[in-house]
Amino acid sequence: MFAHAQSDPSLSKDDYEAQEARLRVALLKAQYRRLERAEQALLVVVAGIDGAGKGDTINLLNEWMDPRHIKTMAFGPPEGEELERPALWRYWNDLPAKGRTGIVFGSWYVPLLREAARKKPRTRRIEAHAESIRRFEALLAAEGVQVIKLWYHLSAQAQRQRTQQLLATPETAWQVTPADRKVQKKYTRLCEAGRQAIELTDSPHAPWTVIPSADDRLRAIRTSETVLDALSRRPPRVAAGPARPAPATRPPQRLARVDDDARVDKDEYAAALPLWQGRLAKAVRSPAFRERSLVLVFEGQDAAGKGGAIRRVTRALDARQFDLTPIGAPAAYELARPYLWRFWRRLPRRGRIAIFDRSWYGRVLVERVERLAKPADWRRAYAEINDFEQQLADHGAIVLKFWLAITPDVQLQRFRERQQSPFKHFKITADDWRNREKWDAYTLAADAMLARTDTPHAPWHVVPSNDKRYARIQVLKHIVETLERSL
Amino acid sequence: MFAHAQSDPSLSKDDYEAQEARLRVALLKAQYRRLERAEQALLVVVAGIDGAGKGDTINLLNEWMDPRHIKTMAFGPPEGEELERPALWRYWNDLPAKGRTGIVFGSWYVPLLREAARKKPRTRRIEAHAESIRRFEALLAAEGVQVIKLWYHLSAQAQRQRTQQLLATPETAWQVTPADRKVQKKYTRLCEAGRQAIELTDSPHAPWTVIPSADDRLRAIRTSETVLDALSRRPPRVAAGPARPAPATRPPQRLARVDDDARVDKDEYAAALPLWQGRLAKAVRSPAFRERSLVLVFEGQDAAGKGGAIRRVTRALDARQFDLTPIGAPAAYELARPYLWRFWRRLPRRGRIAIFDRSWYGRVLVERVERLAKPADWRRAYAEINDFEQQLADHGAIVLKFWLAITPDVQLQRFRERQQSPFKHFKITADDWRNREKWDAYTLAADAMLARTDTPHAPWHVVPSNDKRYARIQVLKHIVETLERSL
Repeated sequence: MFAHAQSDPSLSKDDYEAQEARLRVALLKAQYRRLERAEQALLVVVAGIDGAGKGDTINLLNEWMDPRHIKTMAFGPPEGEELERPALWRYWNDLPAKGRTGIVFGSWYVPLLREAARKKPRTRRIEAHAESIRRFEALLAAEGVQVIKLWYHLSAQAQRQRTQQLLATPETAWQVTPADRKVQKKYTRLCEAGRQAIELTDSPHAPWTVIPSADDRLRAIRTSETVLDALSRRPPRVAAGPARPAPATRPPQRLARVDDDARVDKDEYAAALPLWQGRLAKAVRSPAFRERSLVLVFEGQDAAGKGGAIRRVTRALDARQFDLTPIGAPAAYELARPYLWRFWRRLPRRGRIAIFDRSWYGRVLVERVERLAKPADWRRAYAEINDFEQQLADHGAIVLKFWLAITPDVQLQRFRERQQSPFKHFKITADDWRNREKWDAYTLAADAMLARTDTPHAPWHVVPSNDKRYARIQVLKHIVETLERSL
Repeated sequence: MFAHAQSDPSLSKDDYEAQEARLRVALLKAQYRRLERAEQALLVVVAGIDGAGKGDTINLLNEWMDPRHIKTMAFGPPEGEELERPALWRYWNDLPAKGRTGIVFGSWYVPLLREAARKKPRTRRIEAHAESIRRFEALLAAEGVQVIKLWYHLSAQAQRQRTQQLLATPETAWQVTPADRKVQKKYTRLCEAGRQAIELTDSPHAPWTVIPSADDRLRAIRTSETVLDALSRRPPRVAAGPARPAPATRPPQRLARVDDDARVDKDEYAAALPLWQGRLAKAVRSPAFRERSLVLVFEGQDAAGKGGAIRRVTRALDARQFDLTPIGAPAAYELARPYLWRFWRRLPRRGRIAIFDRSWYGRVLVERVERLAKPADWRRAYAEINDFEQQLADHGAIVLKFWLAITPDVQLQRFRERQQSPFKHFKITADDWRNREKWDAYTLAADAMLARTDTPHAPWHVVPSNDKRYARIQVLKHIVETLERSL
């Protein structure tokens, strides 16, 4: 794997100059073509032996390409807000739009490499890191973010030589940090870690390239060649499941089993509402909650009463503590990123609450039913969403999802009421009537969603909602009981 | 000012219902008209007596308007990343796009109100807070962000009554926080602080309205009326200076005094470059720098050598420590906010460096020369920019600005070289040749900029750049010497 790089090959000045011109022209052309098409972003992940000149990649690409469309994504150890979200949050947050290029330092490989470079690496952890990386990169590739990974390599001898050369004159000695000197001792272990990381995570849609780095000229040429190659190719799509789709099995019909008659009378409601709100207020103000966060998802047919239920929840919350995100059709800059991007950006910090009025489940509901997403795309979304919510839960978030279930006749009645109300008829659009005609398709999609994404770490609550009062109390009750149990 | 609210007026149920329908229809219509026009955002600043039901504004507006276009901007005491930027950063960061509405809790009035409510308020600090608020709101108004401010008021007796009612039943007692009880004692001081804040910051473009709040119904109606009124009116433009513009005085011709022949020979350069880079590397890695930050601005005619100078700087930096932002024409979502918005978002944290390849000075350079901004707009920009940089400096940022000065003949020569180079001719566009014809207009604009924005807290360095080597060394030298002096 490293054999060629280990021999510290080099490039003559003449050869370099001959190739430089050609590569720079080709890089710029490829970059502009990408930008124009705006089909894919490119992430260049930089890793490798310390002292191999990885950092120069930034200067190189910014000089040889048009720097206005390149973004350096350089991360140190997680700090501040980053620590309050799952580890991948900072990379999600910074994803470049389709057409653009990001150079990633301190990437999602750091935990894997650190583990693999330990004196006694823990196999299970290595495998867990690798698995999470594979999932992340597969999702990115499927969503139009191409990933290439560069491993900068040189021999131990060349590494030592470089360090000594730099240390020899005070003007360049600053380039050698104490960490570098320490790392030198770990050369063998880092090589082994790199080998392992590459083996575990090399894939057609996110390939590794080893860049020989003892010679500055060769390193520059190889780096640009690799980037050029990536820019010029449209990457293979991630396998979208079996070629012949499995016969569509009807998911368990959980929605058919809803008790549509469940109701609460007015007096009972008036008495219960403040009680549950009081308990909710207490729970989210408790010291234990400061270490957790809460993610609430509301889904349901139009006019199911999502907004009203949410307002009964927010009335018990401090405005500074929650963030309400109503989800509509994505804007252009959101469409330029993977569909989960806009949700990652709204994840709550510790001690905070994020409420989604509609959510990432749009992928397997409206996008499926309205054919806005290809079958291969919404089919893989179940696993991607489960993985996303798992990351939230692993990080201490409490994730609760509500499907407010109403029957078609109640929807019709509410639509009519809205149309007759002077200030609610705005809420009814032609879209709503059209969606109504697709009631069965939405029910099928919802049943499949409930079957495939109801997990212990992020459970679905199907709430009978023909009676709004009943639904509101149920929602509060589920939240309160979960919080009281979890804290 | 508070006389009417102090009498705790109320509204009957019948009157309320009669007005509700009318207001909700009107609010929705006004909101959609705003969205369609997308000329202005609206910020609703919420303040007032504690326990007056301010928090309910969120539920009210989200219920009576379309919640998809309303953003709650609720802030507690500054924390985490917020502390590493000037105080207004978090509000800038969250500004809604034109057409949309934001509800602001924990606004920029908190420091002013807190100071004014002290036992012994310090007049000077109050005036300083008020002045900074007036500037901020004037800028917002001029840039298409309408601001209205609501003061929720009720009598001391009504406040006491509300608290006691809530405390009477355990289901509602949670609504009264220990802070509320304490605040009650400070009623008189808070009223006085409110009165003072209103007097100091009431203006036609950002008016205050006192909302009587003892009665829930009246509070809801008055709140919506005020928001409706704001949504329906196009606010008065902020005075754009004297009606008859002062005669255009030619600014001091600083650029005419540049030593165009300054140069460094190749050997001297090869020796000096690593020395300065070494000192730079040392300075930004020093413990003292961890408490500061560095903002570098590069401006100059096309082909002045900005990119090359920047790369000589970044070569001495750790990729995780700096953020390079090349500034081109703004994107749609940037145009939907005040022009300074995209720069506020890129401000460095403590210990970090932000480099701008072109910057907010585009407002008084390209936007002025190409008539992309109205004269009134770029004229007020000098003061706005000085104020912006002052906020940075006050917060511990070191701000350095470089104008790389070349002569027309050198530009022509570089353009020709670029056109002949296989990989640089991409860099030359029709725009560049066009801009060249406006050389004198750019020089005039640059001289005015240098005269009006060269401040002790953010000085301009005019760097003779006909010789690239000379310019690069000068840039490094200025940065290093400033850092070494400041740390």
